[in-house]
Amino acid sequence: MDAYLKNIKEWTLVAQAVRRFRTSDRSVVVGPGDDAAVIIGSKGRYGLLTVDMLVESVHFRKREDLKKVGYKAVAVSVSDIAAMGGEPRFALVSVGLPRKDPARRAQALFAGLGQCARRYGVSIIGGDINRSNRLVIDVFMVGEVEKKNLVLRSGAKDGDTIFVSGPLGGSLKSGRHLRFIPRVAEARFLVKHFNVHAMMDLSDGLSMDLSRLCEASRLGAEIFEEDIPRSAGVKTTAEALGDGEDYELLFTLGPAQARRLSAGRFHFYPIGRMTAAFKGVRMRSRGGFLKKLPPPKFRHF
Amino acid sequence: MDAYLKNIKEWTLVAQAVRRFRTSDRSVVVGPGDDAAVIIGSKGRYGLLTVDMLVESVHFRKREDLKKVGYKAVAVSVSDIAAMGGEPRFALVSVGLPRKDPARRAQALFAGLGQCARRYGVSIIGGDINRSNRLVIDVFMVGEVEKKNLVLRSGAKDGDTIFVSGPLGGSLKSGRHLRFIPRVAEARFLVKHFNVHAMMDLSDGLSMDLSRLCEASRLGAEIFEEDIPRSAGVKTTAEALGDGEDYELLFTLGPAQARRLSAGRFHFYPIGRMTAAFKGVRMRSRGGFLKKLPPPKFRHF
Repeated sequence: MDAYLKNIKEWTLVAQAVRRFRTSDRSVVVGPGDDAAVIIGSKGRYGLLTVDMLVESVHFRKREDLKKVGYKAVAVSVSDIAAMGGEPRFALVSVGLPRKDPARRAQALFAGLGQCARRYGVSIIGGDINRSNRLVIDVFMVGEVEKKNLVLRSGAKDGDTIFVSGPLGGSLKSGRHLRFIPRVAEARFLVKHFNVHAMMDLSDGLSMDLSRLCEASRLGAEIFEEDIPRSAGVKTTAEALGDGEDYELLFTLGPAQARRLSAGRFHFYPIGRMTAAFKGVRMRSRGGFLKKLPPPKFRHF
Repeated sequence: MDAYLKNIKEWTLVAQAVRRFRTSDRSVVVGPGDDAAVIIGSKGRYGLLTVDMLVESVHFRKREDLKKVGYKAVAVSVSDIAAMGGEPRFALVSVGLPRKDPARRAQALFAGLGQCARRYGVSIIGGDINRSNRLVIDVFMVGEVEKKNLVLRSGAKDGDTIFVSGPLGGSLKSGRHLRFIPRVAEARFLVKHFNVHAMMDLSDGLSMDLSRLCEASRLGAEIFEEDIPRSAGVKTTAEALGDGEDYELLFTLGPAQARRLSAGRFHFYPIGRMTAAFKGVRMRSRGGFLKKLPPPKFRHF
């Protein structure tokens, strides 16, 4: 979903329009609404399908280094596959290229696409190239996950501890959104060694994304302001909650599993707990005051 | 690939950049360069993956009925799957929506997407919606085909008869490009009952697409001007050869199979034969004169 939107309500209608598609195809395990769609695969596995579009002047600056943009375009989809517990396999890339200097631009873009694809074991096996007045890159990714390791947004349970995989905020300002590390290794570690109840990646900010996880799991969440890890240079909780484009994992574990997690290879940050006592997200401030999080703000270029 | 291109050579470089991606993944049967990518599937089947982007003012007019545009966006990908001998199954849809009136536009667009998807048994299982200054729709489609029924562009043999599945030309002018029938039924009939050597769909015009089939099969083609079927209202052979957006099937059969074809359920048009005697496409005119086809012209809005 997108940014700078004056009329959030209109866009909510649009997003709902996608989810409205129902299917009677029994090969579809999960349709629209999670980080990736899930279909029946081969040999005890599910297929994972996701798509992410980047638009010039919306997701990256007009004069941005296109190698970085290419990297990001693949990394965003890799992050979606990781958030389902899976591993990325194949990508197809659609590009709308402005008329000016297409070969040079394409070369830089494809260098970045290829770099990220190689790093995460993704084969780019197809594409479509068109003219467009602004640069548009759309990456389709196919991943897979063992059936037992699939994690959805909807599985959180009352009393679960909520974790994030890294500090939040300032991704756009610092340029980290162009070079972030999709958390495949962390997600695979988690699904192999823990019973992860719910997971998603943080693309639109903790405030909005946690409220989505809550909605999918039909629960509320209480988070603790002092436990929310902030990226270097991030001065306010509001930025850590709302900036977006962090691409860290957000996940929940039952209390016993949560206690075991601290001994693992990676550092994860507990930030709160799921609750059946209310809906939505509330934050307990440093002063102990519990407040409902305000409607999330979109922020992009 | 796109139209209106002043510098075809630059764009050829761009297209080559996509094909340059090599993979060592043995699950990839066919990478970039055919109508769809082919991966190992389950139960004696291959998975087919294709993506097609439509851009406002390039592939459809700014004020076009968006229900029709949605129909076309799905139909183009269905046609790619059919051209591999397969059946479409799942789609994910990325949309870049202009800021003005997004809900109304999305509603019309999704009505068209849904209409075409239902007609061809496709489940729309995901999507990504963003803001964009011009409308962009990108459809990613997953299909499948029995291993024995897969047909590539590269399998044509010396002496094969070349067929098309319908009359050509005038698709943009007549508006047929917004309501064409992807030839799934015809393609499935062909692969089930005939040994189809090579097949593709006609998106950029017979002249360009046949030259691609020739290149993939490392052969030449001789076609007969008087045998090229023209759509109603198409007055010149040049239009039938170059207009594009016909989405008819182009395929080749060995001589014995070709003779048997006329007895089938559908009407197919023999237009020439494959040859090892030269490379490229030559056309024998009504006067008996054999001419090399000129470099193909792109034509879009």
